[in-house]
Amino acid sequence: MSKDHIVKTFDDDLSLLDNKIAEMGGLAELQLSNAIDALLRPNAEKAERVILNDQRIDALEKEIDSFTVQLLALRQPMADDLRIIIAALKIASVLERIGDYAKNVAKRTIALSQSNNVGSATSTIARMGNVVQSMIKNVLDAYVSRDVEQALDVWERDEEVDQLHTSLFRELLTYMLEEPRNITACTHLLFIAKNVERIGDHATSIAEQVHFMVRGDMPDLKRPKGDQSSFTVVEAEEGDSPDAGSTA
Amino acid sequence: MSKDHIVKTFDDDLSLLDNKIAEMGGLAELQLSNAIDALLRPNAEKAERVILNDQRIDALEKEIDSFTVQLLALRQPMADDLRIIIAALKIASVLERIGDYAKNVAKRTIALSQSNNVGSATSTIARMGNVVQSMIKNVLDAYVSRDVEQALDVWERDEEVDQLHTSLFRELLTYMLEEPRNITACTHLLFIAKNVERIGDHATSIAEQVHFMVRGDMPDLKRPKGDQSSFTVVEAEEGDSPDAGSTA
Repeated sequence: MSKDHIVKTFDDDLSLLDNKIAEMGGLAELQLSNAIDALLRPNAEKAERVILNDQRIDALEKEIDSFTVQLLALRQPMADDLRIIIAALKIASVLERIGDYAKNVAKRTIALSQSNNVGSATSTIARMGNVVQSMIKNVLDAYVSRDVEQALDVWERDEEVDQLHTSLFRELLTYMLEEPRNITACTHLLFIAKNVERIGDHATSIAEQVHFMVRGDMPDLKRPKGDQSSFTVVEAEEGDSPDAGSTA
Repeated sequence: MSKDHIVKTFDDDLSLLDNKIAEMGGLAELQLSNAIDALLRPNAEKAERVILNDQRIDALEKEIDSFTVQLLALRQPMADDLRIIIAALKIASVLERIGDYAKNVAKRTIALSQSNNVGSATSTIARMGNVVQSMIKNVLDAYVSRDVEQALDVWERDEEVDQLHTSLFRELLTYMLEEPRNITACTHLLFIAKNVERIGDHATSIAEQVHFMVRGDMPDLKRPKGDQSSFTVVEAEEGDSPDAGSTA
């Protein structure tokens, strides 16, 4: 009877942990969505709110951290339960970083509100943002339902984000070559795009944690080399006309 | 006698964990140092080796992860010992990311070897790199010796890195405005500088883990707002002449 009671309470603890992760993930997803919306409109006030709201994500990470340490100390869990707690600890720290990236998008949106508008790049960022947002949503669903297949599906979708990012990187360099007035704006857009791309990477690392939690090991997958932007070179021609460059 | 034996072995385990963290940290520091050296010379082959060697850091993280999970399961540690293990788990994941940033510096060094040379920026990056490298070294010393004061000292030195980064960001935007041929090279240098700045941030989060490990809570410090690059705007004048801009 007493053992039953303890077991039941531990299950309650684990559900509570799931709920906290889901709450934190929902917030991270919302922060990204609001940051990108603030960029598209553009709306500096909304961006300011995103910056402020990051504190809530940070606070949730601290809460989850101390809750997991408490669970480890009081429950001394084994096997599956131990992995659930370790995964939650790691996922919370990944979600905190996703929140930081969303905050940085918002900061740069404020800088952009003082710069020239640069056409179509923001719509590509919005497309990347949509994919990444649904990756966060789906990987959290996969976490809550312990669904490895869904997690691996998220893992694979990161390639699309990487490809969008590589082509956007080239596009923004070309804009800068065409019109030096665009340089500051394009630089911030480059970093915004990179932030969104990094959020996609972080969604895949949550997917890996779901795999670890359910199967007991990390997935043995070869990551597709989607993001080539770090190797990308776009050359200026004589007279500074824009030119297609090479991607190593 | 048997209990003594168990206690002693657990201490051995914890020393082994410390050694693994120290080894991983030493590698991360070396990777950063080699990546920056490859940038300065420049030396694309050395950069290639940095990219390849990142696998060793990734492998060490996996090793530390499974070792900590094993320790939690077999030893069911409490209080201080539990915090040591949790901190090691978190520090390993931070070091893995430091390795990723060093790898990205190396990737962009390869792209830069195809671009124009841009004067003094690399020497500022080297200066940032020196500070950040000594931050990693000192914070790992603080970890091994459980020295909270030394950890907090590292935490504070991040402001210098942030300030160097903010001024380098403005400098690079100005180069781009002056000479569009520099745009691709400067863009990669902007991301390299950002990577080094992020490594500094990660050194501070290791410092926070040392505080947590020794004192049982996270340090209650207000982070100085050193890095203002996300808010920086540098305007092009009519005729594209470079001009000092504003930092919000």
